[in-house]
Amino acid sequence: MLFKSITIRVRYNETDQMGIVNNANYPTYFEIGRTELFRDIGLAYCDLEKDNILLPVSELYVKYFRSAFYDDVLTVKTILNDMPVSRMKLEYEIANQHGELITTGYTQLAFLNGETKRPMRIPLKIKELLMPFF
Amino acid sequence: MLFKSITIRVRYNETDQMGIVNNANYPTYFEIGRTELFRDIGLAYCDLEKDNILLPVSELYVKYFRSAFYDDVLTVKTILNDMPVSRMKLEYEIANQHGELITTGYTQLAFLNGETKRPMRIPLKIKELLMPFF
Amino acid sequence: MLFKSITIRVRYNETDQMGIVNNANYPTYFEIGRTELFRDIGLAYCDLEKDNILLPVSELYVKYFRSAFYDDVLTVKTILNDMPVSRMKLEYEIANQHGELITTGYTQLAFLNGETKRPMRIPLKIKELLMPFF
Amino acid sequence: MLFKSITIRVRYNETDQMGIVNNANYPTYFEIGRTELFRDIGLAYCDLEKDNILLPVSELYVKYFRSAFYDDVLTVKTILNDMPVSRMKLEYEIANQHGELITTGYTQLAFLNGETKRPMRIPLKIKELLMPFF
Repeated sequence: MLFKSITIRVRYNETDQMGIVNNANYPTYFEIGRTELFRDIGLAYCDLEKDNILLPVSELYVKYFRSAFYDDVLTVKTILNDMPVSRMKLEYEIANQHGELITTGYTQLAFLNGETKRPMRIPLKIKELLMPFF
Repeated sequence: MLFKSITIRVRYNETDQMGIVNNANYPTYFEIGRTELFRDIGLAYCDLEKDNILLPVSELYVKYFRSAFYDDVLTVKTILNDMPVSRMKLEYEIANQHGELITTGYTQLAFLNGETKRPMRIPLKIKELLMPFF
Repeated sequence: MLFKSITIRVRYNETDQMGIVNNANYPTYFEIGRTELFRDIGLAYCDLEKDNILLPVSELYVKYFRSAFYDDVLTVKTILNDMPVSRMKLEYEIANQHGELITTGYTQLAFLNGETKRPMRIPLKIKELLMPFF
Repeated sequence: MLFKSITIRVRYNETDQMGIVNNANYPTYFEIGRTELFRDIGLAYCDLEKDNILLPVSELYVKYFRSAFYDDVLTVKTILNDMPVSRMKLEYEIANQHGELITTGYTQLAFLNGETKRPMRIPLKIKELLMPFF
């Protein structure tokens, strides 16, 4: 199992007129979370793209428990529970500075050949980086 | 059953460096879709907020089939299949100008009392507007 | 002189907790405005990029007169007053559905060679498309 | 004189298909910069809003020198050169992790009475917090 926790301070323009963080920002928070988990194990999105590996999102789910507000400091925990085969399932938990659960969710990422745009199995390069954790 | 189709032209800043519409824009497209469905039946978000009724998203799911690109004209179809009781489930289908399916998904909206921030059953006002379609 | 007016309906997530359109959305409205002006004269951003011509923004100015609100229908007028030489200056006026002025502004776009990333004078292709208007 | 430097890591969805940070993100970086400068002197946006003081942007200028890229760590320096009277002029300098200048710019903020929505002179509360720096 592999996980990574990061903090994000809510930006003013992420709120909407309901006075809360607009629902559409959480997929972005998830994206930041997994980017940092990848960075931690030495896997940079930029390098992947140079190697012609794309990781587009194929599925997204978010469950909203509480609202987050401007200036909240959110902890985004990104979890990889299983060694990926043809897709990578990442799970997320977002809590606020009081430890209250804000949202949970998951994304499925596909492994795509950047040239042919065809799906493939997990690239060896990624598999080797993940191996120590499973 | 109630549905509404609208078109959205992809904005330049909705793309990311993968050259496709970033995954986090679809929840916003869904939000635009349901807003227009609501408008069609005479239900304006603004008025709801004046009446102290909030409709926060409590659940979101997106399945990504194909990429959308800058300048694509997307058709967002928003569907309400059942008369809501304590939550409103809306389903979405997004296709491009070639009729190809881009994403599908759904959102659950909660009915919230704007003052107490407590959940409630569907407000009578909304029920009456929806009645003719079910 | 060349100009183009388009309408944009304010999206819910473009508002912030002040209850108004967040200031950072206007540069995006400007971008949509100039894209549509370009389209009108047969100039598509996508084609430019295929021809290795980039048009990055080199300067941006916005003056805010009034707030815009959720659901407002904004008219974005984009104006090209002079035939560009080494940069293209576009001016913008945004008004709401009551004819009230919301913002004005301008952008300077550079002409950039997509390969060398070096600035260049206006590409012939663009000059020819603009010629009839000046 | 009062200033504050913060760092921001570029998010994936802030890039566009040109492969660079979309121009419309810089006003948001500026907003984050001034928020943190305000926080530093004990001035929280949230509190201002509770006190019925609004600080809408009345003018924005950005000059773009170089592109920023995904994953860049940008330093945003926000500077208040003069004690505000009827408006607050903040200046900004954004550099990347190599010390290269990316953008400069400024914003003018109006002081607005949140109830009457009328402009006013700098509220005493803000003046007192700024006094030690001028």
